[in-house]
Amino acid sequence: MNKQLRADADQIIKEALHAVLPDEAVARALLDFHPGSGKTILVAAGKAAWQMAAAARKELPDIDDGIVITKYDHVIGEIEGIKCREAGHPVPDENSFSAAKEALAMVENLSSDDTVLFLLSGGGSALFEYPMIDGAELQDITKQLLKCGADIVEMNTVRKRLSAIKGGQFAKAAAPAKVFSIVLSDILGDPLDMIASGPAYPDSSTCEQALAIAKKYDLKMSDKAWELLAKETPKTLDNVESCITGSVRELCSAAARSCKALGYEPVFLTDELSCEAREAGFFLSSVARTHKKDGKKLAYIAGGETIVHLTGTGLGGRNQELALAAAPGISGLKNTAVFSFGSDGTDGPTDAAGGYVDEDTFNELKAQGLDVHAVLKNNDSYAALKAVDGLIVTGPTGTNVNDVALVLIGND
Amino acid sequence: MNKQLRADADQIIKEALHAVLPDEAVARALLDFHPGSGKTILVAAGKAAWQMAAAARKELPDIDDGIVITKYDHVIGEIEGIKCREAGHPVPDENSFSAAKEALAMVENLSSDDTVLFLLSGGGSALFEYPMIDGAELQDITKQLLKCGADIVEMNTVRKRLSAIKGGQFAKAAAPAKVFSIVLSDILGDPLDMIASGPAYPDSSTCEQALAIAKKYDLKMSDKAWELLAKETPKTLDNVESCITGSVRELCSAAARSCKALGYEPVFLTDELSCEAREAGFFLSSVARTHKKDGKKLAYIAGGETIVHLTGTGLGGRNQELALAAAPGISGLKNTAVFSFGSDGTDGPTDAAGGYVDEDTFNELKAQGLDVHAVLKNNDSYAALKAVDGLIVTGPTGTNVNDVALVLIGND
Repeated sequence: MNKQLRADADQIIKEALHAVLPDEAVARALLDFHPGSGKTILVAAGKAAWQMAAAARKELPDIDDGIVITKYDHVIGEIEGIKCREAGHPVPDENSFSAAKEALAMVENLSSDDTVLFLLSGGGSALFEYPMIDGAELQDITKQLLKCGADIVEMNTVRKRLSAIKGGQFAKAAAPAKVFSIVLSDILGDPLDMIASGPAYPDSSTCEQALAIAKKYDLKMSDKAWELLAKETPKTLDNVESCITGSVRELCSAAARSCKALGYEPVFLTDELSCEAREAGFFLSSVARTHKKDGKKLAYIAGGETIVHLTGTGLGGRNQELALAAAPGISGLKNTAVFSFGSDGTDGPTDAAGGYVDEDTFNELKAQGLDVHAVLKNNDSYAALKAVDGLIVTGPTGTNVNDVALVLIGND
Repeated sequence: MNKQLRADADQIIKEALHAVLPDEAVARALLDFHPGSGKTILVAAGKAAWQMAAAARKELPDIDDGIVITKYDHVIGEIEGIKCREAGHPVPDENSFSAAKEALAMVENLSSDDTVLFLLSGGGSALFEYPMIDGAELQDITKQLLKCGADIVEMNTVRKRLSAIKGGQFAKAAAPAKVFSIVLSDILGDPLDMIASGPAYPDSSTCEQALAIAKKYDLKMSDKAWELLAKETPKTLDNVESCITGSVRELCSAAARSCKALGYEPVFLTDELSCEAREAGFFLSSVARTHKKDGKKLAYIAGGETIVHLTGTGLGGRNQELALAAAPGISGLKNTAVFSFGSDGTDGPTDAAGGYVDEDTFNELKAQGLDVHAVLKNNDSYAALKAVDGLIVTGPTGTNVNDVALVLIGND
């Protein structure tokens, strides 16, 4: 193993992860937060709601009221002046509904001098929900839609209108108060209308579409539900300012900063990687082979979330497969490494966050009788990387903003 | 279809292909050719030998003697002062041997003031060969090696030593004359020892290795063959200057120049792309999605040769699959295109050189009832691209330096 490159990789991993922890991400986003002269209300929803709220509370001493709505067992302690609620995920339950009702009550009847600090993270679709119809009917409509093969866009177009929260309706309820929304993104491309179903983001679907879907699938619904489908969701939200933080793009940017500090010129390829893991590894090893000839320290950065088609029975994860697949292509390429890791610290059903390979890995594997292509075919990257000290182990990180893969080209 | 982007793509294709035609490539390489005060001998071997020799002849009026050795039906006319020979490919025949003998005779007994202009292209391994043992025995040894599962490196280590040409021996035979070697590369990474088995390139294998292989596989050979295996090939060749031209790297550079002239900032990713075609398409569409946000005209360039795993019975090629696979990812992404083409003008068993898709293609396919993933599964890219005017058709180009794929991001 190339010890210098491995040390560089470990430092980049540490610094990139640090930048996307909810605490850091929220603190950074709050630099742009300028509350009005009136009250400040904090509403945090999603799996990382408690961490986000705690981080915000540290930065902002003057909060008038607030609520955290997160998953069961995700409230870690008290936060001064903030009510902490736990609720059902991935299926919303009565606790979801009552907590959302509390949140709505906090933001209704505010003035234009008041400000809502809205902290949103993944899981918010279930955790932050208040249906305008009976919970049982909502479930029944969802089942009908699933049964007749409605796609996810159709499902959401209907369900948004049966909710008092989704499709921009939470932010509308808070108007005329200003809403400053900090979103910890866990979806590639950061689609604000899809993260937690966009409680503070204008909805692009129309009620004509919603009604057409209901008719197309011959949905059996109450009169109330039909009425709701005919009600338009907000198409603009002048009171909202949104700030995406802790996304895979920030993970990539932080990795780039770290590379630069170590003397590597960073080249940002993408933050929406979504192809087959091993093929991304092959692609990146081609980039390494070509640019090794440039004769300078370079770092290529590709964030996103690759996929793995299981063809074997081994143990591994997408980041480990990506790295392992790059090993043959960079074999013997002096001072060259490829590594990939998941920001949540867990890659597949393993205790590793990802994998690291360099110019020596292919031959080190060979010396142990391990053939990269056979290992990949059996999806057994974990054992192979473990055998050559190629695992990246961070432990759970407390965040989840997809993965990032890097090519490091050092000086000879 | 986005007509402006398609027009830009067509211009880039035309200009990139032009730069790697043997004529252009040889003329460019000859700018660095400075023959000595003595005689100048031209030796051209390979599938593009005639074109290369004809191009060189145009630039250099003062050639004293010369020979072209190419495939049957590849001599297109007379070239003044040059003997044109045709021979067997991919299996060498007696005409290969007699032509190679003529070439050897031309370069032996030259002085250090004399110069050999050596023009090499793909196919040279078979076309330019003179065995030091009986042709029948050479065939028998090749069969023995194949039968016992020798790999390509082992095969070449043995066969180079049974040849008077391969492994740098042609250039050694020409010494003390200077050899200026212009190589039209058709192998990724331009490995000069592998292109046509490296007649003018030092050989890195040793006779110890060759003998060990012969013993390992218990080869049955004549005493003469055993003697030859024990003879060392040249490890350095001080009389040779090599120049790679018309390679996939030049195809990429020419595409980059053309992009720049059209206002796109070119970003060169790799010239050694070798992953699965469709996955390269997915990868490039991720790059497009990410960098569309940069808000400037950009062109990403990836050269190489992708592979296709056949899972269906349709008609297509690797370039068409790559482009088609990028269609969903760039769908709706204003002024964005992905295209890929083979420099020989033939992609798979089709009359197209490659494929072009842009922001409209996915929906245009959908309107015709065509699903990209189903089409790819059936390896049926040709019909799908044809249906949306997405084929790139150039006709045979007279060169073969792999493929190049581009992402174009235009201004909105």
